[in-house]
Amino acid sequence: MSGVIRQAEENRSRSPQFGEGDRIRVKKRTRKGVVVYEGIVMPAAFSKNIVIKLDSGYNIGIRPENVEIEVISKAGGEKGRTPLHAETRKEKAMEREKPTISILSTGGTIASKVDYRTGAVTAQFTTEDILEAIPELEELANIEGRVIYSILSENMRPEHWVRLAKEVYDEIKRGVDGVMITHGTDTMGYTAAALSFMLRSSVPVVLVGSQRSADRPSSDSAMNAICAAKVATSDIAEVTVVMHGSTSDDFCYVHRGTRVRKMHTSARDAFRSINASPLAKVHYGSKSGAPRVSGEDLRIEILDANYRRRGEVEPELRAHMEKRCALVKFYPGAEPEVLEFFLERYKGVVIEGTGLGHVSSEWIPKIKEAVERGVVVVMTSQCLYGRVCDRVYDTGRDLLRAGVIEGGDMLPETALVKLMWALGATNDVEEVKKIIQTNIAGELSERTCIILTGD
Amino acid sequence: MSGVIRQAEENRSRSPQFGEGDRIRVKKRTRKGVVVYEGIVMPAAFSKNIVIKLDSGYNIGIRPENVEIEVISKAGGEKGRTPLHAETRKEKAMEREKPTISILSTGGTIASKVDYRTGAVTAQFTTEDILEAIPELEELANIEGRVIYSILSENMRPEHWVRLAKEVYDEIKRGVDGVMITHGTDTMGYTAAALSFMLRSSVPVVLVGSQRSADRPSSDSAMNAICAAKVATSDIAEVTVVMHGSTSDDFCYVHRGTRVRKMHTSARDAFRSINASPLAKVHYGSKSGAPRVSGEDLRIEILDANYRRRGEVEPELRAHMEKRCALVKFYPGAEPEVLEFFLERYKGVVIEGTGLGHVSSEWIPKIKEAVERGVVVVMTSQCLYGRVCDRVYDTGRDLLRAGVIEGGDMLPETALVKLMWALGATNDVEEVKKIIQTNIAGELSERTCIILTGD
Repeated sequence: MSGVIRQAEENRSRSPQFGEGDRIRVKKRTRKGVVVYEGIVMPAAFSKNIVIKLDSGYNIGIRPENVEIEVISKAGGEKGRTPLHAETRKEKAMEREKPTISILSTGGTIASKVDYRTGAVTAQFTTEDILEAIPELEELANIEGRVIYSILSENMRPEHWVRLAKEVYDEIKRGVDGVMITHGTDTMGYTAAALSFMLRSSVPVVLVGSQRSADRPSSDSAMNAICAAKVATSDIAEVTVVMHGSTSDDFCYVHRGTRVRKMHTSARDAFRSINASPLAKVHYGSKSGAPRVSGEDLRIEILDANYRRRGEVEPELRAHMEKRCALVKFYPGAEPEVLEFFLERYKGVVIEGTGLGHVSSEWIPKIKEAVERGVVVVMTSQCLYGRVCDRVYDTGRDLLRAGVIEGGDMLPETALVKLMWALGATNDVEEVKKIIQTNIAGELSERTCIILTGD
Repeated sequence: MSGVIRQAEENRSRSPQFGEGDRIRVKKRTRKGVVVYEGIVMPAAFSKNIVIKLDSGYNIGIRPENVEIEVISKAGGEKGRTPLHAETRKEKAMEREKPTISILSTGGTIASKVDYRTGAVTAQFTTEDILEAIPELEELANIEGRVIYSILSENMRPEHWVRLAKEVYDEIKRGVDGVMITHGTDTMGYTAAALSFMLRSSVPVVLVGSQRSADRPSSDSAMNAICAAKVATSDIAEVTVVMHGSTSDDFCYVHRGTRVRKMHTSARDAFRSINASPLAKVHYGSKSGAPRVSGEDLRIEILDANYRRRGEVEPELRAHMEKRCALVKFYPGAEPEVLEFFLERYKGVVIEGTGLGHVSSEWIPKIKEAVERGVVVVMTSQCLYGRVCDRVYDTGRDLLRAGVIEGGDMLPETALVKLMWALGATNDVEEVKKIIQTNIAGELSERTCIILTGD
């Protein structure tokens, strides 16, 4: 029971004399001062970090540099006494057998911290910080990573998507087994759609974020990141978004990048697949208390087997985005001048119409004029669910005659990204029209809309 | 088995010699030609119409004017031989005890017909046509009604809402027990919100529509209209939307006018209450085959008892809408010029931001300038579900400093309508800000947003 205080030497890891199950207090010196953690030592077979379970029930991983460790109480009996980090050579051998995941960090809540002076959350974590907070990732894979951006996702622009696609492609060509992208949740759906069109990937490309920052007890960041890493090592070689599937910590959904939408401002299960089933569920074994990353506690259940498998295609990059595109939402009383503004300035315009894809009759002549000038106009619905069908009502038929392209069952946001991508590839309007109406990355089910109303 | 052909005299009802359970063929002359219906005669105790069950399983009511009736086969035995319309005097006495509903028709699918030449659907039914198609309405109430508009709802404008509010108010002052408004589904949510702000009603004001036109076997128009009439005779003295609650014909939901949104382009259960429970369910007894409008087969189950009761307030009309308001949806890459366009031309702008209520940093100085000029800018979220909270992230705090008004958990569409209404009432920006942040018609739950993220 007597405490043993050890001073770890700067920038050098030594095996402290404590083991699994012991209660320890860790003082860690950082640039900002000393932080103290207290909890029970957890197994961390593949991690170089010290992992302790805090009294809050959450695990934290601490790099063994610049730490002072005090053993508060030993685990009962002899078991659990095996010192951690004693079998470093064996670990190294096993690491070679693990897959390699590259984590590209772009910012957002999963990589952000609360400023305790102001209470505000700002993006500031690096990939290394993520690893420190979530040491379980290293049990799943050899983790590499780098910071691509450090921005809040509302500041992402099409130019950012293009560079990000190139960075992901480079990682794939370099031979990593999966890519994980940490991203702010606000525009994660847009970025996922953009990468889906620009990349034909041979390995999983997984976007992940967090609705509650890592500093809060209710944070979803660790579970989302662990589930995302699991998917990054799977055979789902598509661009996906992996986020909480329920308000409990029991599973994540794997959403196809072109079908996913943030549907709640703050809930953990904010992300939903629209007009499609999620591709899979990642079951997360929270019943055992501490998350475990192997066996039945972390497993993927496929919900839609119609996905691209690992290695099925050669990786391909088609990174181009025409940024002179816009999304316009129709509302009652919206003057034709509103639409005119967009049609005069942009090469492509996606309209979020009402119902099956309608706007007021006053808008239709403006569309006709613009289409004749070569502007591409795509119709989607603010209903979000269901399929646009302009063949049913007079208004829709007039819109088709004016040259509107039906967006099928595409999300308005996905249609915008696809239009940017199509116009980035070609200026041939007929070709763009064909691309919009062809399923490229699971964004569109190619059915006629008649069956929806002809029953 | 011998057919009896009878020629009914123009504009005069005579009792044909057939009864409940007989199979008859009805030829009806209309202005456009002769329509033939065949089916089994159904009981229609309170209706002057002939009601037959078609082979499709749907009932149709036919006014007895201008019809030729042929009896195809008689019902078995003596039962069911009682001639319909024999007890006219008794009926008249009972009608005086029934409540009176006024049906105001504005157009839309519930009042539309397929043009069989083109396959397109156009709005063309009058209130009388609705009654003819759905005779059960007359079992629930004495039905009066008139056509206010005959337009597709995508052509509704704030001016239409104002006139409609006045017409509804006139009906209430005239002493009707409930008002039913048939409306196209596309913008029904917007109109419902508009009426909610403009009218403090002492009786139910129910908007109802149809996702499939009355001519199609799968039409939802009859059930929706019957449920809506039931609500119009209830004690729920609010502006509500009554539509299918599931894809089956088992119940309708009663949605509060400020919380409802069309969430599917074509499904029957397209309408959903967002960030609130529906006020009630109307159970519809479809198990017995033919819908019955009395007893347990048609009953209201209250889901949220916090609603305004019949007669609780004196009716009040505050019919004004400032149409120089706009709704702008943010998307990645949206240039500041987009927002500038709206801020320069409109008195009030609702932004549909991302997540908790964000836009790109480039937009924020534009907002600040505009607010300083007196433009009112309200922030809502394209997530739809959840509450805007601009106190959590740097971007949000910058937006608040720029003068953005948080829209709470209001739908973006409802926030637009409310802003039009508030600016219609006053030019005092502080007063408008106060109205936006005060719950007027159940559109806003007045909580601080901190609790969402502070756990």
